[in-house]
This record gives sequence, C-alpha cells and structure tokens, in this order.
Amino acid sequence: MSKFWSPFVKNLVPYVPGEQPKLAKLVKLNTNENPYGPSPKALAAMQTELNDNLRLYPDPNSDLLKNAVARYYGVQSNQVFLGNGSDEVLAHIFHGLLQHDQPLLFPDISYSFYPVYCGLYGIKFDAVPLDEQFQINPADYARPNGGIIFPNPNAPTGCLLALEAVEQILKASPDSVVVVDEAYIDFGGETAIALVDRYPNLLVTQTLSKSRSLAGLRVGLAVGHPDLIEALERIKNSFNSYPLDRMANVGAAAAFEDREYFDKTCRLVIENREKVVSQLEAKGFEVLPSAANFIFARHPRHDAAGLAAKLREQGVIVRHFKQERIAQFLRISIGTPEQNQALIDGLGGL
Amino acid sequence: MSKFWSPFVKNLVPYVPGEQPKLAKLVKLNTNENPYGPSPKALAAMQTELNDNLRLYPDPNSDLLKNAVARYYGVQSNQVFLGNGSDEVLAHIFHGLLQHDQPLLFPDISYSFYPVYCGLYGIKFDAVPLDEQFQINPADYARPNGGIIFPNPNAPTGCLLALEAVEQILKASPDSVVVVDEAYIDFGGETAIALVDRYPNLLVTQTLSKSRSLAGLRVGLAVGHPDLIEALERIKNSFNSYPLDRMANVGAAAAFEDREYFDKTCRLVIENREKVVSQLEAKGFEVLPSAANFIFARHPRHDAAGLAAKLREQGVIVRHFKQERIAQFLRISIGTPEQNQALIDGLGGL
Repeated sequence: MSKFWSPFVKNLVPYVPGEQPKLAKLVKLNTNENPYGPSPKALAAMQTELNDNLRLYPDPNSDLLKNAVARYYGVQSNQVFLGNGSDEVLAHIFHGLLQHDQPLLFPDISYSFYPVYCGLYGIKFDAVPLDEQFQINPADYARPNGGIIFPNPNAPTGCLLALEAVEQILKASPDSVVVVDEAYIDFGGETAIALVDRYPNLLVTQTLSKSRSLAGLRVGLAVGHPDLIEALERIKNSFNSYPLDRMANVGAAAAFEDREYFDKTCRLVIENREKVVSQLEAKGFEVLPSAANFIFARHPRHDAAGLAAKLREQGVIVRHFKQERIAQFLRISIGTPEQNQALIDGLGGL
Repeated sequence: MSKFWSPFVKNLVPYVPGEQPKLAKLVKLNTNENPYGPSPKALAAMQTELNDNLRLYPDPNSDLLKNAVARYYGVQSNQVFLGNGSDEVLAHIFHGLLQHDQPLLFPDISYSFYPVYCGLYGIKFDAVPLDEQFQINPADYARPNGGIIFPNPNAPTGCLLALEAVEQILKASPDSVVVVDEAYIDFGGETAIALVDRYPNLLVTQTLSKSRSLAGLRVGLAVGHPDLIEALERIKNSFNSYPLDRMANVGAAAAFEDREYFDKTCRLVIENREKVVSQLEAKGFEVLPSAANFIFARHPRHDAAGLAAKLREQGVIVRHFKQERIAQFLRISIGTPEQNQALIDGLGGL
C-alpha cells in the first residue's frame, strides 16, 4: 500500500464485473444485456441531441427524465432519484441510507456488489442464507437491522419474491430502509413501486440496462418517499452535480415513453427464456424458476466450470461464480433465438 | 432529518452548480462552457456509436480513451484515471487519497466543491488565504498537511501559478498528495503533467467540459503515478464499474485525437478573452489576469450583485458569488464575439 492512500483503501475488495470481450464474434450470454436493441425512439431522441449543444452542461436535475419516470409509475417527481447506472444509485443509497449501528442484512447469494459497497463506506452487514431451494425467506429478516437490501428477482438465482412477501419484510422492519433492487423486475415480476406510498421505509431501484436495452448509456433510478430521495439528492449534489449526460437524459426519457416497444421486447425475452429452460431441462439441467432475463442452472453430472470452459471454446460466454453453494451453477443470459441455439449447440449431447 | 438517513447526511452542505436556464435565448456566460461546439470528429465518432450496441455495457476500463489520453500526454495508460466529469474524479480523489490525520489545504478562494467533498468524506481542512493580489503563495503551503489541492489556473480568479511555483509546493510536501486541478489549463497555462514522472506525489486532474467543449458528455481525468491511480481504480471499482458510457468513451477519445480543432478553438477563446478584458478595462473594471476561459472582474463604483441583475434583465447571465473577499467580483465566461458584445452592450455606459 502507498503512504499516499487513505487508510481504508488498503482493505477494499472491488467488484469484478462480467467480462466485456473485445472480440465481436462471441455469443455474449454473460452480463444479462438485452439481446434486442434500444427503442428506435430512444435512438432518434439521442440523434437530435448529437450536436454542438454538447458543449453545454446537461440539466443537473434531469427534470425531463425524472418527469418521464414519474409519469410512467404514477408517482411525483420528488419521489424519483436518478444516477449513472443503478450501481451509482446503489452506492449513494449505501452511503446515505444504510450506514447505521445495526448490521445491514442481505441474502448470502445475491448481487456481489453489496458487500463491496459495505467495504467502501464501512458498513457492517450480515449475509442471511437463502433457504435450501435458494429462496428468500421473509421471516429470516425479522430481526434487528440497520437496513435490508435484496434484488427482486434475486440475482444470480433469478427467483422472484411475491409482493406479499416483500410487504412482510417491510412491516417487520418499519424503522429500517428496505431496498428492493429491481434490475430484472420487468421480465416476470410486479414492481414494489406500487407500495411506496404506503411504506415510507421502502426504496425501489431499477436500471435501464436490462429491460430497456440501454446498458451502454448508464442510467439507473430509485423511487421512494421524498425523505429518502432527499438524502440521495444531498449525496449526489455533494459528489457530482451532473451524473447523467445529455444523451442519457433524452435517450432514457424516450425509452420510458415507448411502452409498445418495451412490452414487445420484454415479451420476446420471456418467450425465449421459456424455450431455453425447456431445452436445458431436456438435457438434464436443473433450472431455478426464473423471472429474469437470465437463468441459473446446474447439471447433476457435469462440472459448471468445465461446462463454461467448453462453451467458451465454442464462442459462447456464460457466467460462472466461484462461490460456496453456487459453484456448480451457471448464470446464462437469454439471447436472441439464434444466440440461444448457439448455447444449446455448444453444450452438445451431455 | 429522517430517522432513515445515515447520520452524516444531516450536516451535508451540497455544492450549488451555476444555473442551467431552460430559456434558449439567454446569453449564457455563467458556467464557463466553451462557446464553440465539440470537434466535428468527436460528433462523428459518437454518430457511429449511436446504434443497437447501446444495449451492451461499455468497456469498464475505457481503454480506448485511456490510450488516447496517454498518447496525447506521452504517459503510460496506467498513469491515467477516468471518470464521469472531473467532479467524479475529484470525489474519488478526496475519498481515496486525501483522508488523513492532518488537514487538507486549499485556497480560501477556490473551487467551492472542495469543502463539500470534505463534508461528504469527513476530511478536515484548512483554507489558506490567497494573498492581497488574489494569488496563491507557495510558501503558505509549506506546513504539515494531509494533502494539498488547488485549481491552476485558480477558479474563480482565473490566475495562473507558474510551474516552478507548483514544483515548490510539491517539494515542500513530499509525503502528501498534491492535486493540481487543471480544468482551465488549456486557455493559457502549461500542464503539470510534464512533472508526474518526477513527483510521485503529484496528481493532475483535467476535464473535457471546457477546452474540449464536451460539458454535456461528462468526462474528466487524472494523470499521476500508477500507485495513485491504483487507489482511484479501487474506489471506482467499488463504486460503479462503468462510469463512462459508450458515447462518452468514443466522443472523448476522438476529441483528444483532433489536435487541430482543439488548438484553433482554444486560440479563439484566448483572443476573445483579451478583447473582452480591454473592453471591460475601458469601462473602468479591474480585471484579474486570466489564463482561463473566464475573467474575474470588479468595478470600483458599481455593486457586483446589481450589475449581475442588470445584465440578467438584458438576457446575459454571469456568475456572482456571495462570498467574503470576492462579493464585489463577477465571474464572466468568454463567449463568442457576438455573446461578448451582448455583455458589453448590456453593461451600457457605466
């Protein structure tokens, strides 16, 4: 460690994102991107913004996009917070709302960025084990805590928690912020945003990187009570006044306005997913029930790391986590029918 | 304060950026944007990126842009750090390199985001007074400290510190990180990046929002010893894996490649500045010597707030800081010749 570093930096263990290979030919089923492009209306909106006005700062409050999100979800714009991808939104949430005396709770198998944020901001946490079927059991969270966070559907399992179970968690911890990280909600779940007016401790995060096909643009959001949003705005305005650039503001707003394209592409991803699940099950895989744009699967007779390596040799990348309990699973993003077929072909006769 | 907030949030005093008016007709000389658009090559590069590939994440390491910056400055790519505007880069620097037992030092009249970052990360600081001529005196920084940061040219004064004076500061504090914030360096200064190989404690930050006319795209950078860059990469990878979107990566890289356009527009801004300085001096203003794309001026017989209000009535916005020692100054960005004429006309016969 350098003497110049702030002391805590020495112990930081950064997050490792999925590989972004520079070879164009690979079938990329490793980072849960949408196989379909963004809404043509989003691309058209960005086209109109691609001009000399890029010399000017963007709107620091991103009112255009805040209003589009508020309209879409039927909330007020002061219930909406925006950031440079949901990772930045989550970072500000950990910093501004989850730093308390009691430990933060999240599932032991979950988004692996959560413990990283805890390291960044010095937050104590307890990892709560998923049950034997890899499900979140709400009763396990009914204990003293300084906050609760979980993805819904969970990642990397893909499993959905019903809204009644989310409410059970909210009711058991009325003095804690409960963050429902809905990166994948549009592929088969029901958003908890419907509950924000009844639970002042609920904060819901979403991203435009998955169901809205804009991973390359970096936009995420949170919806909750204005008091929670105010904490996030204070952090944001003490960190970076303009996290969303001009292209992101207009592209994301147009994506929210284009419901038809959104519905169509989500439906296609879900149909493709169900087909992949059947094909994998026919090959003997056990596939966890998925409400996401990926599936989490293991084969009783084939080692996961070996399967991932074999697929890669054939130009198909999937994600394998070397982590206890899930080391025999592969996380496979749902692609186009052609990409999914390449996956099935790549597995060959198991 | 909400019981849900992390305790420190209550005392945060966020930064207030200059107004981004939603009226298009205003002559906007308040946020130091470049009056000329971005390089046509930057716009063309972004055009090629505006397609369905926006569904894919950007390169988390932004190698294309890192390599472009490294080539431009003749350094290695592991000496370059990138972020979502230099504000994000600065935030990570405060967090990762400036949190020490001794107080951080910066000028009393300087970028007003510095004390905000200190609030965000719990960093002690001492504001070191500029001298009577509003200049940084290197000798004032030769005392125990946990880091030093100053803009060069300084903002909002526009005054430049010569590289020998920067070296004097570096030599007097070899055990501290010295950050030279060069947001405005291209309008008349010499970059301290030439010194990074000789001073392992030197970190230089720059932005593409000013001399490269890309404020709307949000790209900033830091150049220094690889040990300093590693601390920043650890923070960044514990905060947000992909702070630069696809458009920003290619647009910024192309802007660095187009030296001809960059040289031409910088030269025009400097010429326009010298003309505005003469015109204001002819009206009786005292103008601090500026090496930036703005000037800092006061009139011995006219109140600054009153002048700003009068200009606004005529559709010209300049920035006025209600801060001790500088309350009688206006900070005026250099615009096109037409915009500058609107300023002069707006002041009328003083």
